[in-house]
Amino acid sequence: MTDIQSMANAIRFLAIDTILNAGEGHQGVPLGMAEIAATLYANHLKAAPADPLWPDRDRVVLSNGHGSTLLYSLLHLAGYDAVSLDALQTFRRLGSTCAGHPEIEQHAGIEITTGLLGQGIACAVGMAVAEARLNAEFGGDLVDHRTWAFVGDGCLQEGVGQEAVSLAGHLRLGKLTFLSDDNHITDDGDTMLSISEDVPARFRAAGWHVQELDGHDIAAVDAALAAAKDDPRPSLLACRTTIARGLPRLQGQRGGHSAPLKPQDREEACAELGWSAGSFEVPEPVRADWAQAMQRAATDYGDWQSRHAAHDDRAEFDRWTSGALPEDWAGTGSRLRAQAALEPRATILSSGDVCDALAEALPETLVLCADLEAPTNHKRGRHALTAQDRSGSYVHCGVREHLMGAMTDGIAAHGGLRPVNVTYLAFADYERPAMRMAALMELPGLFVFSHDSIGVGSNGPTHQPVEILASYRAMPNFRVFRPADAIETAEAWEISMESRRTPALLALSKQDALPVRRDGAENLSRRGAYMLPGHEGARDVTLLATGTEVALAVEARALLAEEGIRAAVVSMPCWELFEEQDPAYRAEVLGTAPRVGVEAAMEFGWQRWLDRGDAFVGMTDFGASDRTEVLYRHFGITAERIAEEARGLLGR
Amino acid sequence: MTDIQSMANAIRFLAIDTILNAGEGHQGVPLGMAEIAATLYANHLKAAPADPLWPDRDRVVLSNGHGSTLLYSLLHLAGYDAVSLDALQTFRRLGSTCAGHPEIEQHAGIEITTGLLGQGIACAVGMAVAEARLNAEFGGDLVDHRTWAFVGDGCLQEGVGQEAVSLAGHLRLGKLTFLSDDNHITDDGDTMLSISEDVPARFRAAGWHVQELDGHDIAAVDAALAAAKDDPRPSLLACRTTIARGLPRLQGQRGGHSAPLKPQDREEACAELGWSAGSFEVPEPVRADWAQAMQRAATDYGDWQSRHAAHDDRAEFDRWTSGALPEDWAGTGSRLRAQAALEPRATILSSGDVCDALAEALPETLVLCADLEAPTNHKRGRHALTAQDRSGSYVHCGVREHLMGAMTDGIAAHGGLRPVNVTYLAFADYERPAMRMAALMELPGLFVFSHDSIGVGSNGPTHQPVEILASYRAMPNFRVFRPADAIETAEAWEISMESRRTPALLALSKQDALPVRRDGAENLSRRGAYMLPGHEGARDVTLLATGTEVALAVEARALLAEEGIRAAVVSMPCWELFEEQDPAYRAEVLGTAPRVGVEAAMEFGWQRWLDRGDAFVGMTDFGASDRTEVLYRHFGITAERIAEEARGLLGR
Repeated sequence: MTDIQSMANAIRFLAIDTILNAGEGHQGVPLGMAEIAATLYANHLKAAPADPLWPDRDRVVLSNGHGSTLLYSLLHLAGYDAVSLDALQTFRRLGSTCAGHPEIEQHAGIEITTGLLGQGIACAVGMAVAEARLNAEFGGDLVDHRTWAFVGDGCLQEGVGQEAVSLAGHLRLGKLTFLSDDNHITDDGDTMLSISEDVPARFRAAGWHVQELDGHDIAAVDAALAAAKDDPRPSLLACRTTIARGLPRLQGQRGGHSAPLKPQDREEACAELGWSAGSFEVPEPVRADWAQAMQRAATDYGDWQSRHAAHDDRAEFDRWTSGALPEDWAGTGSRLRAQAALEPRATILSSGDVCDALAEALPETLVLCADLEAPTNHKRGRHALTAQDRSGSYVHCGVREHLMGAMTDGIAAHGGLRPVNVTYLAFADYERPAMRMAALMELPGLFVFSHDSIGVGSNGPTHQPVEILASYRAMPNFRVFRPADAIETAEAWEISMESRRTPALLALSKQDALPVRRDGAENLSRRGAYMLPGHEGARDVTLLATGTEVALAVEARALLAEEGIRAAVVSMPCWELFEEQDPAYRAEVLGTAPRVGVEAAMEFGWQRWLDRGDAFVGMTDFGASDRTEVLYRHFGITAERIAEEARGLLGR
Repeated sequence: MTDIQSMANAIRFLAIDTILNAGEGHQGVPLGMAEIAATLYANHLKAAPADPLWPDRDRVVLSNGHGSTLLYSLLHLAGYDAVSLDALQTFRRLGSTCAGHPEIEQHAGIEITTGLLGQGIACAVGMAVAEARLNAEFGGDLVDHRTWAFVGDGCLQEGVGQEAVSLAGHLRLGKLTFLSDDNHITDDGDTMLSISEDVPARFRAAGWHVQELDGHDIAAVDAALAAAKDDPRPSLLACRTTIARGLPRLQGQRGGHSAPLKPQDREEACAELGWSAGSFEVPEPVRADWAQAMQRAATDYGDWQSRHAAHDDRAEFDRWTSGALPEDWAGTGSRLRAQAALEPRATILSSGDVCDALAEALPETLVLCADLEAPTNHKRGRHALTAQDRSGSYVHCGVREHLMGAMTDGIAAHGGLRPVNVTYLAFADYERPAMRMAALMELPGLFVFSHDSIGVGSNGPTHQPVEILASYRAMPNFRVFRPADAIETAEAWEISMESRRTPALLALSKQDALPVRRDGAENLSRRGAYMLPGHEGARDVTLLATGTEVALAVEARALLAEEGIRAAVVSMPCWELFEEQDPAYRAEVLGTAPRVGVEAAMEFGWQRWLDRGDAFVGMTDFGASDRTEVLYRHFGITAERIAEEARGLLGR
């Protein structure tokens, strides 16, 4: 019989030693949740630390990420090699596996980067959805695991956390369990300063299985974890805890959260808890208990390997989990480009065409949409994943965009599926914190947005992005695509599905885009920008445009040609990819003639491609409410205006 | 006795006529909520359409903003001159008061811009807090009004809406009432596609007074509104409604939301509802009932004017509600600059100094903080506004940043107070949708952010902004300040408090900033950028920097001086203000020498101030976890590196 209390105390002292050694850190969580964590690992978790990437492992998320030493202590004690003593002793230092907040390193058992509050549990919902979908696809022999999330009160105050609670209950994600740290202490002091709601009642209202218990009572925690596994609903263990428990000076106090520890605190904790081991030392019997616990955790591992080796779908399962594309992917890409509509068509609908085709050609795609099925049209070839039917590849996420973004991260981090996130571009602001996390974690989520400009029309300026493109172009490791037509839309999908470490955003139009009149034999969007056919030889002016405005530039070129002015039109679907091209190609495309930049958005950032004295045709303020064509004229984003600016640059 | 049913039907037909005339619009809300709205206006609302800006009017918010014709019909029937028949007949057209979604025009009775779901009810929480604070300050004789918010299911799915529910219950905002439109229909179809939670139970868990009723039963609505007014808790009227009620073809259907209306729909509705008036025609008895209702609504108006005329605090009340600064404001500004710390000090602490001083000098400031009292230090001279004590000027908003941003908007829109929003800059991504609304509405909220760069240190990249400055510089009508020291911090506050139509963001440091060594006699930040003392005459190179990096530029100047290189240092606390200066001043400051831009952030956008061939010292990717000084060295943001780049530009 393992001594779970000592296992818990081992967590406590590793956390204390790690924080003391670093001179900073948050002791509140690891000391307050030690019994909960130890009981989970001792008797319930499924994991194989020797094979951290085992696809059927349980996923553990530390949503209260400031308590990172809880996770690091756990992973060290559980035997993850990458969380060595050296890693603990370099906590919060450059290059350490043990960063201030957990940062995704799955080979070390760190499943996801947490950080800003609330996102962890929202990612956990994505992980649980991924498990449900994969379980339905490949069966319980290959996929049958749980998602456990450590949660602080802050995560549950955040809106994204509330969205997570609501949708997880709706989808009856029975393999998802939140372990909440109800310590009544927040950074400002007592949680009563800012929250007085009945949290268990709130979860019950959302259809959760809720158990309230003492988070330091190991038997109670053990029973509650067992009950959680038996219940078909997602489970909340609402654990009443004492923050920083074991530190006589700080436990139950506001300072328990992260007040600097002193060596004397450790001495007092040793006396309080009957601990005599030295710094970073784990007594041998406790190590043995941890080893035994992890042996139990890996019980199923060998059987799984046998089942996997004999499974008919093994090759496809391995392909999905590895993230590799199907063998005939190049053919799929060519076909998508060849089939792209050549009549005027909204790029969001062209994107729907691709999404439809990929329902079969890339069945690991999982589409998430925020209550905009009809206007975004990405469900055609798919059916919904619901509480009753996990086989669908489309999730009705409701009007919960921030959650949907975090679920995208969670699904991508889980592995096995390619998440595609669909809503209007104005809501990219709601999703931004999660999209930033995708960029930071180097997860290849695809974020498809419709209604990308004043083209939205009369719904007005609240729904018309003018600065959102720039706001994402400013973000590291994010590709912003604004395709000009159906071919570029297909190309953006193709490139994004091939991406392994960079998320992408597609800014697509509600209104019809005109085809840019080239064939799709080669994916030209891979170069980020390219000169459109229709111009050869020397040029007097270069028109740089993106998205639906490329058609205006083409029209302006014709107007200018009538006057003998030779204009080249450059379509720039993805600045980031263009930036990666060799300088000679960039110079060739940009040319040396004066330039007019054209985009129905703010100029901010365009200076990268325009020299002083060049012109820009776009927005200078928020939009307005009227029909699309009226707005384009009102804001002066027209072929005539482009031609006029070009003439101006040439002094004509 | 007024005929409320006919008043409701008048709303219905005005909405139908407005939508038919425009050829587009959302009929679901106005037809589904007509009885609720008519009963509110007939028997409960306090308003004086002849004086739309009456400070003690009830505030009405349409959070489900797509149903804007509900609000426009109401305002027209209630007698707001600006919502004329002509305005209704230009619905969704440029320049009309009746834009696609409500856009703030308080003289027309439109209290706030709604738009993206969830923000309206969050703004309403801000309005109710403003009322509570002003009521405590000036007493019920001057301030005693309610906030009513029409709410759709989408608003309650959004995280920001959930945050609003939680905090409103905690603060016991008894004068806040949500009128919810529970029609079971969402854009995708039945709400059961994406939500199955027990919404009334969720509100009860948060301490709300909840009544469930038939939203078409006028007597029930009337009784519930009366009970809501009597209860000390915020109230939810959970109204079961039929979407698009009155339109036989569409009522209760998914298409009820916004499917295009046909003339025949109107004919069928006339038959269904026994209505015979022509298009845009309101039968005289119904007009009379509306007039009588609004006479009741304005019952208190005359008394209030008398009380106001006789009130001792009248002058101060008028000053607060007009948004005017105190007469001695210029003196206050000088004093703040003169008292600014000249020793090294974190700019977030310098901001706290200003905030402390303004607790007395500008008592209409109301500070909102998201559970970061200690690290942001803006509570010193203030006490908390709580459920029991409304006299405080500091609100513990909990870990609910998006709500806090929207509350800032709501408080500013309410009038009478100057909201100041305080948290870490990383959370600006959570607040972004609300901050965008402040810019769009031209509301002067001040958003104070600490931890503005890799200076955050070992909490790591999740908490280290690198692209957030650029993302707000891209936004229209927003001022981004990044002060270099205590004087610039005081200046940024001074400028922001003087602003009437432009919100501002202060990006402030956790780590000590060095003083830029000038006196504060003149507010130089008003120019947006200026040359620091310490250089005269010709220059070989110009170093442009912001925030804590200005000190590095000063240090680099000294290094370069040793080599005989003459460097000028330009501090650029606010690009937007610099952009507004006359070209001659800008040219003088920027000079013609080569330039090095310095900012611990991405280069994106800096091309505005740098020519090709100029250099930039800053970030090229996300940050990392280690101590501040280690990170600055690691990422090469040092005086040595700046000097090196300067030398490189000069070919030395």
